[in-house]
Amino acid sequence: VTLDRYDEDRIVGHLLRDFEHGNSVHVGPGDDCAVVGLKSDTQWQLLKADVIVEDVHFVRDSPPRRIGWKAMARPLSDIAAMGGLPQFALVTIAVKSDTTLRFLETVYGGIADAAKRFNVDIVGGETSRSPGPLFINIALTGRVTARECALRSGGEPGDWLYVTGALGGSIRGKHLRFIPRIEEARWLTANFTIKAMIDLSDGLGADLPRLARASGAGFVLDRDRVPRTRGCTLDHAISDGEDYELLFAVSPQDGSQLERRWAKKFPKLPLTHIGELTARGESARLHGYDHFAKRR
Amino acid sequence: VTLDRYDEDRIVGHLLRDFEHGNSVHVGPGDDCAVVGLKSDTQWQLLKADVIVEDVHFVRDSPPRRIGWKAMARPLSDIAAMGGLPQFALVTIAVKSDTTLRFLETVYGGIADAAKRFNVDIVGGETSRSPGPLFINIALTGRVTARECALRSGGEPGDWLYVTGALGGSIRGKHLRFIPRIEEARWLTANFTIKAMIDLSDGLGADLPRLARASGAGFVLDRDRVPRTRGCTLDHAISDGEDYELLFAVSPQDGSQLERRWAKKFPKLPLTHIGELTARGESARLHGYDHFAKRR
Repeated sequence: VTLDRYDEDRIVGHLLRDFEHGNSVHVGPGDDCAVVGLKSDTQWQLLKADVIVEDVHFVRDSPPRRIGWKAMARPLSDIAAMGGLPQFALVTIAVKSDTTLRFLETVYGGIADAAKRFNVDIVGGETSRSPGPLFINIALTGRVTARECALRSGGEPGDWLYVTGALGGSIRGKHLRFIPRIEEARWLTANFTIKAMIDLSDGLGADLPRLARASGAGFVLDRDRVPRTRGCTLDHAISDGEDYELLFAVSPQDGSQLERRWAKKFPKLPLTHIGELTARGESARLHGYDHFAKRR
Repeated sequence: VTLDRYDEDRIVGHLLRDFEHGNSVHVGPGDDCAVVGLKSDTQWQLLKADVIVEDVHFVRDSPPRRIGWKAMARPLSDIAAMGGLPQFALVTIAVKSDTTLRFLETVYGGIADAAKRFNVDIVGGETSRSPGPLFINIALTGRVTARECALRSGGEPGDWLYVTGALGGSIRGKHLRFIPRIEEARWLTANFTIKAMIDLSDGLGADLPRLARASGAGFVLDRDRVPRTRGCTLDHAISDGEDYELLFAVSPQDGSQLERRWAKKFPKLPLTHIGELTARGESARLHGYDHFAKRR
């Protein structure tokens, strides 16, 4: 069996299935970040590592400053999805030895832009030679109070599902310049009970089922409400991926107040009620959604 | 300017030169690990990320279980060099999509071997496609009491320099199966004042000057005392690299007691007094050492 037969979730789940975790691990692999800390602790630490690879996540012609931005913004988006504040980063870069120092400085400039904007302290870096593509791995720590930590798994049937921003079309440039929703997620978790949350890295069509599955629920999606980037079809909005928007679940009684306060606090960023969690097994009845899931 | 004109220390130092650090960073880039925590804290956290790349740190024919072991053992060696205990790991792997699941499972088996032996809890993992070489990044956290934390920078002129094990010849296989000196380093820092310590990843010829420079000192090396792996010349012992042994400095009055107690505690692992730190600028007078440094 070669890897192209597996999707990423299954590979990581499979490889890590036998690892045991000590009691200082609150959440191991499977959520946006690992959460370390005893259940009884009031403050937890978030741990995340993410890699971008040339010709997979960017191309040689991508603006180098944007490559650096993306490398840091991706794990930041995962910290956001937990309701966390980022703290420390380690940057590992593997490059061909004929890379110019100027190129690498510009990539680092983009990493630094994202670090400054979100108060990340870059505490270490390694550079290695690569015989082929450029790799940038960033390991990021964050912190979150236990009360405000948003897992994928806390949703319940009946919860309303919201998504930030507009979806689809990331390949036209957004995937290199998106803004991790740290500030929005912090506001959400500080002011409301966010029962489950995930960032849309693989697209709604992959990440919504993940959130529902982790919550032991099904879901319905109102296809007409899915917010689309201008010029994008519903198919793009569901399947393109790399949106890096937040998808979250709240209790129905919080919904309308959340919408009102959101509109005041973040007037430029749409928040859309796109569906609901249901009892497990009800997903089949959703409005044409499976059609798109199958076409991926 | 392309990167082949720079050595790794200079690249990382150059790229990170403008980053400012908050007051919760005790040691930023430049030591074996980053150390986060306030100076006043009694317990600090260690952060390290390290990558191995196909055709740079191993070849396609290397035993896959050994590739995994090496990926985890390298950052463990850095945690050891601080006197720390490892805690949590995040594993990032980028592979060609025609890689077999069995190969990847075996690599993970090697990572798991090292994790189990040193009580590391693997809390997260990402897998990405790579268009070219296999790439494994491991980010590792550790902890250390402030009192026992061993930096590179604490050595003083007159301190005795010790090295564990035997040096050279790593390419004959040791680079894939070395034992990180976690236990030895913990014993050293718990029982003695280890004024400066580093792990020998690039070889004595590169790492001894690093430790001395960080301590603001020069050094003398007794070439006849350098412990060599069987069949290795002095040149190999100094320049091969990838020994992953500990090099450390202690006050001369601790030396003989340390040697006696070490021989009892670790009878199978040699400990050798190989030289001394000196006032800065005295390095030129050492016994033929510069000769080897230049030949690298």
